[in-house]
Amino acid sequence: ACVQAPSAEGGCSPGCRDVSYDAWCGVAHGCTRKLGMKICGFLQKNNNLEEKISSFKERSSKDLLDNSDRDSRFRRTETDFSNLFARDLLPAKNGEEPTMQFLLEVVDILTNYVRKTFDRSTKVLDFHHPHQLLEGMEGFNLELSDQPESLEQILVDCRDTLKYGVRTGHPRFFNQLSTGLDIIGLAGEWLTSTANTNMFTYEIAPVFVLMEQLTLKKMREIIGWPDGEGDGIFSPGGAISNMYSVMTARYKFFPDVKTKGMTAAHRLVLFTSEHVSLIHHYSIKKASAALGFGTENLILLSTDERGRVIPADLEAKVIDAKARGCVPMFVNATAGSTVYGAFDPIHEIADIWLICDTFSWRAKGAWGGGLLMSRKHRHKLSGVERANSVTWNPHKMMGVPLQCSAILVRERGVLSGCNSMCAGYLFQPDKQYDVSYDTGDKAIQCGRHVDIFKFWLMWKAKGTIGFEHHIDKCLDLSHYLYTKIRDREGYQMVFEGEPQHTNVCFWYLPPGIRDMPDGQERRDRLHKVAPKIKALMMESGTTMVGYQPQGDKVNFFRMVISNPAATRSDIDFLTDEIERLGHDL
Amino acid sequence: ACVQAPSAEGGCSPGCRDVSYDAWCGVAHGCTRKLGMKICGFLQKNNNLEEKISSFKERSSKDLLDNSDRDSRFRRTETDFSNLFARDLLPAKNGEEPTMQFLLEVVDILTNYVRKTFDRSTKVLDFHHPHQLLEGMEGFNLELSDQPESLEQILVDCRDTLKYGVRTGHPRFFNQLSTGLDIIGLAGEWLTSTANTNMFTYEIAPVFVLMEQLTLKKMREIIGWPDGEGDGIFSPGGAISNMYSVMTARYKFFPDVKTKGMTAAHRLVLFTSEHVSLIHHYSIKKASAALGFGTENLILLSTDERGRVIPADLEAKVIDAKARGCVPMFVNATAGSTVYGAFDPIHEIADIWLICDTFSWRAKGAWGGGLLMSRKHRHKLSGVERANSVTWNPHKMMGVPLQCSAILVRERGVLSGCNSMCAGYLFQPDKQYDVSYDTGDKAIQCGRHVDIFKFWLMWKAKGTIGFEHHIDKCLDLSHYLYTKIRDREGYQMVFEGEPQHTNVCFWYLPPGIRDMPDGQERRDRLHKVAPKIKALMMESGTTMVGYQPQGDKVNFFRMVISNPAATRSDIDFLTDEIERLGHDL
Repeated sequence: ACVQAPSAEGGCSPGCRDVSYDAWCGVAHGCTRKLGMKICGFLQKNNNLEEKISSFKERSSKDLLDNSDRDSRFRRTETDFSNLFARDLLPAKNGEEPTMQFLLEVVDILTNYVRKTFDRSTKVLDFHHPHQLLEGMEGFNLELSDQPESLEQILVDCRDTLKYGVRTGHPRFFNQLSTGLDIIGLAGEWLTSTANTNMFTYEIAPVFVLMEQLTLKKMREIIGWPDGEGDGIFSPGGAISNMYSVMTARYKFFPDVKTKGMTAAHRLVLFTSEHVSLIHHYSIKKASAALGFGTENLILLSTDERGRVIPADLEAKVIDAKARGCVPMFVNATAGSTVYGAFDPIHEIADIWLICDTFSWRAKGAWGGGLLMSRKHRHKLSGVERANSVTWNPHKMMGVPLQCSAILVRERGVLSGCNSMCAGYLFQPDKQYDVSYDTGDKAIQCGRHVDIFKFWLMWKAKGTIGFEHHIDKCLDLSHYLYTKIRDREGYQMVFEGEPQHTNVCFWYLPPGIRDMPDGQERRDRLHKVAPKIKALMMESGTTMVGYQPQGDKVNFFRMVISNPAATRSDIDFLTDEIERLGHDL
Repeated sequence: ACVQAPSAEGGCSPGCRDVSYDAWCGVAHGCTRKLGMKICGFLQKNNNLEEKISSFKERSSKDLLDNSDRDSRFRRTETDFSNLFARDLLPAKNGEEPTMQFLLEVVDILTNYVRKTFDRSTKVLDFHHPHQLLEGMEGFNLELSDQPESLEQILVDCRDTLKYGVRTGHPRFFNQLSTGLDIIGLAGEWLTSTANTNMFTYEIAPVFVLMEQLTLKKMREIIGWPDGEGDGIFSPGGAISNMYSVMTARYKFFPDVKTKGMTAAHRLVLFTSEHVSLIHHYSIKKASAALGFGTENLILLSTDERGRVIPADLEAKVIDAKARGCVPMFVNATAGSTVYGAFDPIHEIADIWLICDTFSWRAKGAWGGGLLMSRKHRHKLSGVERANSVTWNPHKMMGVPLQCSAILVRERGVLSGCNSMCAGYLFQPDKQYDVSYDTGDKAIQCGRHVDIFKFWLMWKAKGTIGFEHHIDKCLDLSHYLYTKIRDREGYQMVFEGEPQHTNVCFWYLPPGIRDMPDGQERRDRLHKVAPKIKALMMESGTTMVGYQPQGDKVNFFRMVISNPAATRSDIDFLTDEIERLGHDL
C-alpha cells in the first residue's frame, strides 16, 4: 500500500503504484488542479476501510471497479502530516499544496464537529477537572515547547481541543445568554479570519467599514431614532459598550473631564438597578471603577418583585443625591436583565429624569435588544427611542457568534469628541479618499477586530424577518417551559407571572424537601440542590443550565433560551434530566 | 445535463440519469457518507469544462472512462444554492447536507483567496471609493433588507467582500504593524469560531482557559519574571491592555479609587514619550481620558533624534511635577514605537523612577514584544523584567491573526483586586470544580472572545524557535532595505543610523525636488510626495506602505516588516514602485 504524502509539486504521491488509485487520481486531476487535489486528499486519507466497504455495499451496485481493486484503492493511509511542519505551508516554496491539504483536513474536523453539535445523541460536554486536563489526556499536552510539532500533532490537538470543550451550539446547551451555532454566522467568521484585517481605517477595511456604518444606521432606525441618525460603533462586548455609554454621557455634559480628569466634575453619581448579580449592574459597576467615578458613586435602585426598577425609588434617590451635593449624571435602564430577564419601565424613568433636570440617561438592551426585531415583543422596550445611547449585543439573543456588541449613540459627534486624540499617523487628512469613513478615532481601541461581517451576512441571509422569527420562537419555547412547570409538582417559580424575556427562574424541589416546613433547614438544603444537579449534569454531559442565588433567594435555576436548535423536546429533556438527577437529593 | 441540487436526504441529485456520474457518485458514497458527499459536491459543481479536459489530458492517460462519458460527467452545474436559504441549514430538519455543501463552498472561496493572497501576480487591493461601493458594484449591494437572500447570493456576497477588500497577507502589503496570513493561526481562528465560546469561566471554556493560563506563564518566563510568576489576561487589543496597565498601577497604590473615584487620589500624573503620533502615546492618552486622569495630566517626555525617551528629561519632569504638588504614578516605557520603532532605555527609566520614590511604572512592548523571542534582538528590551506590567501583542510582530493582545502583570492579585466585583451568578463558589480557574472576575469585560487558541496552536506548530526565526528574518529584511536605500540617490533617511526595529523611515525625493534648495517650498512639495505615491499605489493596487508626518518632519514613508511572506524581491519591488510612481511628481 502507498503511504507517502503527496509530493509538494502537486498531485498524488509519486510512490503510488496502484493503478486504480492512480487512475482515480488522474480523473481527479482532470477536475482542475485544485479540485483534483481535494479529491485526492480525500481518497488518500481513508484508512477506515470496513466502514467504507459496508457503506459502499449498501449504497451502490454500479461499481466501476471490482471489490479487490476498491479495497486496495481505499487502503491508503492519510496524507502523511507527520513529516510536514508549519514551515512547509505557505508562504513556503511549494507550500500551496500542503496548505490546502492541511486546511481541508482542519475543515473536515470542524464540519464533523458542526454535525455532532446538532446531534442530540452526542454529549454537550465531556467534563474533566482542570488538574486532569493539565496532567495531559491521552497525548493531549497543553505545554508549549521550543521545538515545532508536526502538522499531524497539530491536527490531533485541534480534535482534542474540541473534544474536551463544550458544545455551545448543542440543542441542549442552555447555560449562557449566548448559545447556538449559526451556520451563516460561522461562515462569516471564517471569512473574517481569512481577511484578517482591522476596522480602524477605510484604507484597510473598506467593505467592512461600510457594512458597519450601514448596519449601525439600520439598528438606529429600529430603535426609532429619526432617519436612523446618530452614531455608534461595534465594541468587544457589552461591558465595553456600557463603558462607552458612560463615557459619552460624561463627555456630553462635562467635556473638561477629558483633559482635566475627574476632578473637573464634582461628585458625579450614576444609577442602576439593585439586582446585585445582574450583568448590567456588574458591567456598570466595573465601568464606575475603571472610569474613575468609584463604585460608591453608583447608586442602586430598588426593584419590584419581578426585578424591574421602581420609578419612585429613582425619583427619591435623585432628590436625595442632589440634596447631598451630588450630581446625577447617568441612569441605566435595563432592557432584559440577566437573571430575571426584566425590562425596566423606560418611559417612566425618562420622565423622572427630565423632571429632575439632570443630565443624561440611557437604556441598555445587551440581552433584550434583540426583541426590537420582533413586532410581537418590541413593546417591552417601549421608550427606548428616548435613550441617549443603547447597548445592543447581537451575540446574545440574535445568535450572532461571539463577539458582536454595538453601542449606539443618538447624538452625532459625542462619540468621536469623547475619544478623538487626532493621531495623525492613522488618519491623514491628505489621503485620497473621504477620511470621514475612518473609524479609529472614535474608538477607545486602536486596532479593532472585524465583528460586523458575520452579523451583516446573517442579516442578509435571514432578513429582518428571520431574526424576528428566531426571537418569537425562543419566547414561545420559554412560554412552553413556564406553563409546563408553573404548576408541576416539585417546581416552584422564583417570581410570579409570565417572564418578560426567555428567562425562566425556578427551584426544583426533590421529594425529600417538598414536605419540609419552611425554615432555615429547608433553605439550606434547597440551596444545595441546584449546584448538585448542575454538577451531575456536567459529569454526565447531557445538558447544561445556569443557577445562582439572588438576594435572599437561595440557589435557583435560570433557564434562558436563545439557542435556535432547541425544541420542545429539548425542554422536556431538561426537566426530565433535572428530575432524574435531583430525585434523590 | 443534470442541474438539480442534491436532495436533502443525502446523496446526489435524484434527477441524475448519467450512468457514469451516478457510478462515480456511488463510489464516492462508498467513502462513507460524509466523504462521498464532499466528492459528489465537487463533481457536481464543475462546469468549467475546457480547463478540466485540457488539464486531464496533460496529466492522465489511464482514464477509466472515455472522453465523452467524462465530458457529460463534468457537465454539471454547481449545486443549486439559489433555492436554498439560511432556514434550510442546520438545525433545520434534513439540514445537514445543505449545511455541509454550503460550508464547503465557503471554504472553496476562502482557500482560493488564501492561494491568491500569496500569489504575487494578484493585486494587493482593488481600490474603490466609499461612494462607489455604497452605490453598489455589479450586484454587490451592501443594504440590508427584511426578506432573506438565497444562499447563492450569500456566496456571491462572500466572494465580493473579499474581492473589494485588502489582502493583508499579500507579500507586498506593508501598510500596518499587523500583516501576513499565518496558516496555522488561520486554522486556529476557524476552530475558535466553530467552538464559539467565551473565556469567562472554566465551565464553558475549559481547554481555552487552561491554554491561556499556560501561555501567559510562558510569556512571563520569557519576560524574565522568576518562575513566570504573576498574572495576566488576553484583551481585545493593545489599547485595552494599556488601559489595564494604568488601572492596575492605580489600584496598587490608590486602591480607594476603585470605590471612591478619582477624587480619592489627588493630582495623579502619568508620563510617556512625546512622539505625538506614536501609537503608544495615542493609547496611553486615550486611557488618561477614559480612566479619569485627564489628558493634561499625561506628561510628555522629550526624545532623542532616534525617538527614544531621554532619561534626564524624565528625571527633571518628575521633580517638577512633585514640586507642583502632583503625584507621579505611572511611566510608560515604549519597547518598539509605532513610527520609528524606538526602544526606550528601560533600565535608566527604572533607575530614575526608583530614585524619585514614585509609585509604579511599566514597559510596553505591543509592537516590540515579539523581539523577546529572539536571542539576537531581545537585548533591545533589556530591563523589561523590572516592569510592573508589560503589554505584548502577538498579533503584531509575531504574526498571530487579529485580535491577540496580552497584558502581563508581575504581582499576583492586583489584576483581580482591581476588577473584581464578585458577580455571584458567574462565579459560584459552590461549583464542582476549582473556581480559581474562572477568569471573568479579573477582566473589565464580562464576555470575552477566545483569542488564545490560534496563538497557542501557532506556538505548538512553530515552537519558540519558529517565532525567533520569523523575527530574525523580518529584522534582516529591514536591514536589507535600510542598507539598500541609505545611500541611494533620491532617498533620505528620517533618522540616522540602523533602525532598532523593522521600521525604516525615509523620504523619496523625485528628481524635480532633489536639487531644490532647502526651504519652505521644497518642504511643501516633499510633504505631498508620499500621499501622492500612496494614492497611486492604491489605485494600481500593487503594494501598500504607510506614511505620516512627525513633529516638524514632513510626510515620510514608514516601512514596517512583519509579513512572513515578504522577501528581498518584495522589498526591491517596493522601492521600484515608489520610484516608478514618484518619478514625475
